[in-house]
Amino acid sequence: MTESIESLRQEIDKVNLQLLELLNQRASLASRIGTLQTQSGMQLYDPQREAEMLTALQSSNKGPFSNDTIKVLFKEIFKASMALEEREARAKIIVQRKTPEQNTVVGFPDGTKIGDGSFQIIAGSCAIESFDQMDAVGEVLASEGVKIMRGMAFKPRSSPYDFQGMGEEGLKIARQVANKYGMLVVSEIMDASQIPMMSDYIDIFWVGARNMQNSFLLKALGSVRQPVILKRHFSATLKELIYSAEYIASGGNTNIILMERGIRTFNEEVRNTLDIGAVPLLKMETHLPVIVDISHSAGRRDLAIPFGRLAKASGADGLMVEVHPNPPVAMSDAKQQLYFDQFRALIAELRNVNKPDKAY
Amino acid sequence: MTESIESLRQEIDKVNLQLLELLNQRASLASRIGTLQTQSGMQLYDPQREAEMLTALQSSNKGPFSNDTIKVLFKEIFKASMALEEREARAKIIVQRKTPEQNTVVGFPDGTKIGDGSFQIIAGSCAIESFDQMDAVGEVLASEGVKIMRGMAFKPRSSPYDFQGMGEEGLKIARQVANKYGMLVVSEIMDASQIPMMSDYIDIFWVGARNMQNSFLLKALGSVRQPVILKRHFSATLKELIYSAEYIASGGNTNIILMERGIRTFNEEVRNTLDIGAVPLLKMETHLPVIVDISHSAGRRDLAIPFGRLAKASGADGLMVEVHPNPPVAMSDAKQQLYFDQFRALIAELRNVNKPDKAY
Amino acid sequence: MTESIESLRQEIDKVNLQLLELLNQRASLASRIGTLQTQSGMQLYDPQREAEMLTALQSSNKGPFSNDTIKVLFKEIFKASMALEEREARAKIIVQRKTPEQNTVVGFPDGTKIGDGSFQIIAGSCAIESFDQMDAVGEVLASEGVKIMRGMAFKPRSSPYDFQGMGEEGLKIARQVANKYGMLVVSEIMDASQIPMMSDYIDIFWVGARNMQNSFLLKALGSVRQPVILKRHFSATLKELIYSAEYIASGGNTNIILMERGIRTFNEEVRNTLDIGAVPLLKMETHLPVIVDISHSAGRRDLAIPFGRLAKASGADGLMVEVHPNPPVAMSDAKQQLYFDQFRALIAELRNVNKPDKAY
Amino acid sequence: MTESIESLRQEIDKVNLQLLELLNQRASLASRIGTLQTQSGMQLYDPQREAEMLTALQSSNKGPFSNDTIKVLFKEIFKASMALEEREARAKIIVQRKTPEQNTVVGFPDGTKIGDGSFQIIAGSCAIESFDQMDAVGEVLASEGVKIMRGMAFKPRSSPYDFQGMGEEGLKIARQVANKYGMLVVSEIMDASQIPMMSDYIDIFWVGARNMQNSFLLKALGSVRQPVILKRHFSATLKELIYSAEYIASGGNTNIILMERGIRTFNEEVRNTLDIGAVPLLKMETHLPVIVDISHSAGRRDLAIPFGRLAKASGADGLMVEVHPNPPVAMSDAKQQLYFDQFRALIAELRNVNKPDKAY
Repeated sequence: MTESIESLRQEIDKVNLQLLELLNQRASLASRIGTLQTQSGMQLYDPQREAEMLTALQSSNKGPFSNDTIKVLFKEIFKASMALEEREARAKIIVQRKTPEQNTVVGFPDGTKIGDGSFQIIAGSCAIESFDQMDAVGEVLASEGVKIMRGMAFKPRSSPYDFQGMGEEGLKIARQVANKYGMLVVSEIMDASQIPMMSDYIDIFWVGARNMQNSFLLKALGSVRQPVILKRHFSATLKELIYSAEYIASGGNTNIILMERGIRTFNEEVRNTLDIGAVPLLKMETHLPVIVDISHSAGRRDLAIPFGRLAKASGADGLMVEVHPNPPVAMSDAKQQLYFDQFRALIAELRNVNKPDKAY
Repeated sequence: MTESIESLRQEIDKVNLQLLELLNQRASLASRIGTLQTQSGMQLYDPQREAEMLTALQSSNKGPFSNDTIKVLFKEIFKASMALEEREARAKIIVQRKTPEQNTVVGFPDGTKIGDGSFQIIAGSCAIESFDQMDAVGEVLASEGVKIMRGMAFKPRSSPYDFQGMGEEGLKIARQVANKYGMLVVSEIMDASQIPMMSDYIDIFWVGARNMQNSFLLKALGSVRQPVILKRHFSATLKELIYSAEYIASGGNTNIILMERGIRTFNEEVRNTLDIGAVPLLKMETHLPVIVDISHSAGRRDLAIPFGRLAKASGADGLMVEVHPNPPVAMSDAKQQLYFDQFRALIAELRNVNKPDKAY
Repeated sequence: MTESIESLRQEIDKVNLQLLELLNQRASLASRIGTLQTQSGMQLYDPQREAEMLTALQSSNKGPFSNDTIKVLFKEIFKASMALEEREARAKIIVQRKTPEQNTVVGFPDGTKIGDGSFQIIAGSCAIESFDQMDAVGEVLASEGVKIMRGMAFKPRSSPYDFQGMGEEGLKIARQVANKYGMLVVSEIMDASQIPMMSDYIDIFWVGARNMQNSFLLKALGSVRQPVILKRHFSATLKELIYSAEYIASGGNTNIILMERGIRTFNEEVRNTLDIGAVPLLKMETHLPVIVDISHSAGRRDLAIPFGRLAKASGADGLMVEVHPNPPVAMSDAKQQLYFDQFRALIAELRNVNKPDKAY
Repeated sequence: MTESIESLRQEIDKVNLQLLELLNQRASLASRIGTLQTQSGMQLYDPQREAEMLTALQSSNKGPFSNDTIKVLFKEIFKASMALEEREARAKIIVQRKTPEQNTVVGFPDGTKIGDGSFQIIAGSCAIESFDQMDAVGEVLASEGVKIMRGMAFKPRSSPYDFQGMGEEGLKIARQVANKYGMLVVSEIMDASQIPMMSDYIDIFWVGARNMQNSFLLKALGSVRQPVILKRHFSATLKELIYSAEYIASGGNTNIILMERGIRTFNEEVRNTLDIGAVPLLKMETHLPVIVDISHSAGRRDLAIPFGRLAKASGADGLMVEVHPNPPVAMSDAKQQLYFDQFRALIAELRNVNKPDKAY
């Protein structure tokens, strides 16, 4: 019986190749029609013509595929034909991995790199609250060798009545503190209109989970000079995250860092469920650096050390963690920001963890 | 030029018909393989084989379609073939609907029927607690014309320290009350060893969510004479539920009633999320009666009336609802059991809702 | 023993009232400090002072509450105190239901109303593709008495290479067709910068799922004159949806229509899982109209009729459904758009369904 | 003026201390109620009672705090009280961790230990298929130092028509091979009635995900002498898993090993989503060993090495992995079983990963 399956499979292999040839033959014809249409100023997409072809096919269809299935298959063929020219031009998805060796390395003028095999720590308070708070944090970060500081001046909040961030005033503080301690600043952008103003203060744009599929913002970030950290929405598939990165890349900016941050599930003990498997999977699929947000995935500071270890062991290119001089009185995310001594313990603990050469 | 487009289009029409023939030829071959695989218990979906075919196609592809496009198109063809194979494999599943008219009607000696177009109410307290409680409930049910009473003597609880039910003592009470008011009793079974004992007292077996995939129990229920209510696990797919029903049916007992009861999601306001779409989908896929548990799906009694309306409007064959003489002191599920007046209001409200002829 | 619980509860009731008095006493004091601080130009938020109070409390704490718990509780008290003035001014969440009778009715110059007890149909193709397509759809909609037409010119897509909509050109077509058949147009807005241009063409703004938490856009829509349909994100809690509506309402625009559209779950048969329970729950919590998207929740056109019935039986104020002259060749969502005859069958079927007076 | 602020602050400090005392007084009362409730099997969380208290407080509230604020503050107080009660109730759960040092070590006559700080590998094919297959696997396992072999003779399958395992015949093979190579055998039990027969062949019972809440089976395993591996259901909360372990422990058998195996989410690339955060959380909450199933969580063999690294880095006490001489022709789980060389590579890779002293 297995033999019989084998022989049927060989017949299918032959049919596959015949289909392949016909499909390409059809593509050539369609492509020539497309050229003629473009020359004469006609629209490429012609629903009338498609409808007629489908009607003809269905009246000739003797099965076993149903007419509905035939419709779906040819619709797919039509779509592929129509998209051929631009697809050929584009060749492939830009952020998609092409070879095992291909790795985007995001570099900065001070020599800091993400994606070069190192394990970068991005840290700082959830929100900028005052100069004193930022200065205290900056001092600790610098003493631990951190190169990239959170400087969040616009906070996306569920309620319009929650603290919305200090705005530009906050960015000035962040820049001042970063300069004092020789660090880079990453800050969340909420709307494309903020790009020019924010560019005066910050080194890295951060796209939050809620904006992961804000295609207007993503397209606008395709033409900035700064790298972009793109945070996965808590219910986005990896495919959706990769396509969101492609919105930025297709605009010309390929300095994109993907961030896994936990997904929304039925789990009760944590704010989100750390989807650590996303790290090897994203590394298989794309050549972009991947980092792990160990604060929002857990939502509780007592998980920072175990999650930090896991982030490094996963092969990620770094982690993001929230630190605050006095977490219980923080304006936001009070339960997950680390005390200074916890942050120092985390950094110490990370030295005991080996980062694998490859995430997968 | 338009003429030229016209002639190219005629060539495309020819290619279309050749593609049509090849696609159907391929479908026939795949269908024969599917039959062989099903007979030998192999899974229809074989990602390894698909990967090999794609590799072969891509290495033979000379364009103009890119390898990526070829991948997409053949993936679509594979999917269509799989759908065809599944449709044919399904023809052998006992509980699978074969014609639009096929409907299992579960009947009882007293003339009560489920699945005949009527809308049956199954009601009673979450658990049997005492004769007085059951008698009070029985009186109200009977006065509202209810024919099937819950009589739960074994309670599956998350904690071993929660109330586990009255056991056989409880079943005696349930039988006594049911006899007094001329009703049938449905009761949850937890283990195959309970079948002989429970058969002395009850009219319908109930398989709880936690046992939905207990294949030992399901197989054992394949040879009892009583109908079985099979409750969907809160995270089971519909396919899993249907296969669980098939475990019972394949043993010879096709008097199976499927129960939708809400699924576990991220929603916070309800215990589970009522998946009302399961009713038309289960009715499309199987010929079995489908009822809706409006108590566990909501987990709160203030949703009983809206959910009751929805159950009836969905085309389900009935609903299950919990009623208690004094819900706040109930031994379990205190938040969701209805007061007697709420139960009467529910029954009254259901008269204003039309049950559609067909669920889909 | 139950008696003992009762007496302990009475003691707790007394403590509750003492706590209440102290909390209000504290609030008065804090409020007076706030006034003095504001007069002297000091910031209301003083993290240093908070930290000192917490230290004092913890050193006096003898349990049984742990120092951590005391910190959390007082942090909550601090937050409440600080927010007192603006909270008092705001009084309450604007969109929150205050009385059972309160119902926002969204009205239009042509007399069309949503939320007045009627059941409105919003229909049209997924995307504007051409004048002919829109005209064909418009004619059918008008003949069935539909008053609000979809006219989507900007399509949020996962991939940057998918059809992104016809843009302003499409809006012109939509307006022309709507005028011809005497209908209103609803259209999706993707960025605040589109408001002035879109306002020339459309009657209702639509905020898509991906922008449900785009606070920049929501705030901007707080000051437009048109009503806004706010679509629930496929993984948003109801609380998050309500707060997103509040972003719009707090800007002055309370003509908001909430839309349930299915949530992302493990279900395989449907694109999303229709969360029909959201209708009664949203109606309990807010005074806004609620409608149901029966196309995206199912993702398949064979569920449109059952889902349409359920939408009406749920007590929703209307439904949204996609219709296309030739669904298999549609530029997007080909699997869920209805054929014209299916759409007419849906409208006919809805006449057999009673809309309850109240959703809960 | 600053002086006035100072004096108001002193008044607030006094109120703070009075609040502190009252809060703790309230906590003591609530804690006593909690004890009474637990003893009588009542749920600690009582929403009805909370609603009543809130109503009473709101009707007594004279401001300046609004009723809404009072509600928020007391909700927080209720939550803190509940947390305290739960912590105390938990002290009575057998499997609950009482001290940081408490760790159950499961030992075997041959000296093998789980939970003693070592990292145990449990490996073998998904199902017993033949002596040759088991012998080939056993040889490889033994050569890599594996001490515990999978020997699955009863396979819980979704469909009644899928391969259900070799039964007792298979157990004989497993025992024979295990003896030949000096290994222990773990095997899945599906029903309490199998205990005596299986006890003749195996060293460890395995409770599968589908039986995680089969309380009949769990209770029965409370009195066997063999240790039990308890696999988390793919949609069970950690609390549910812990309570299931307690069912076994309360019967007297505390040799329980918890197994994380991935949860069902919307992710598409994997069979289940590895919930690696479960390891530190289970270790915080219980004193039982925790292992990670890296085969079913991924569902694909190319993730075995990254997931293996993560399992060890998480602080788990071991991992479970499926190995087969010829995975593509395996009777079940063909996609996830490792080839022999992949298995050897996994074992080699694990040597590069540090196991932390503590999982949290």
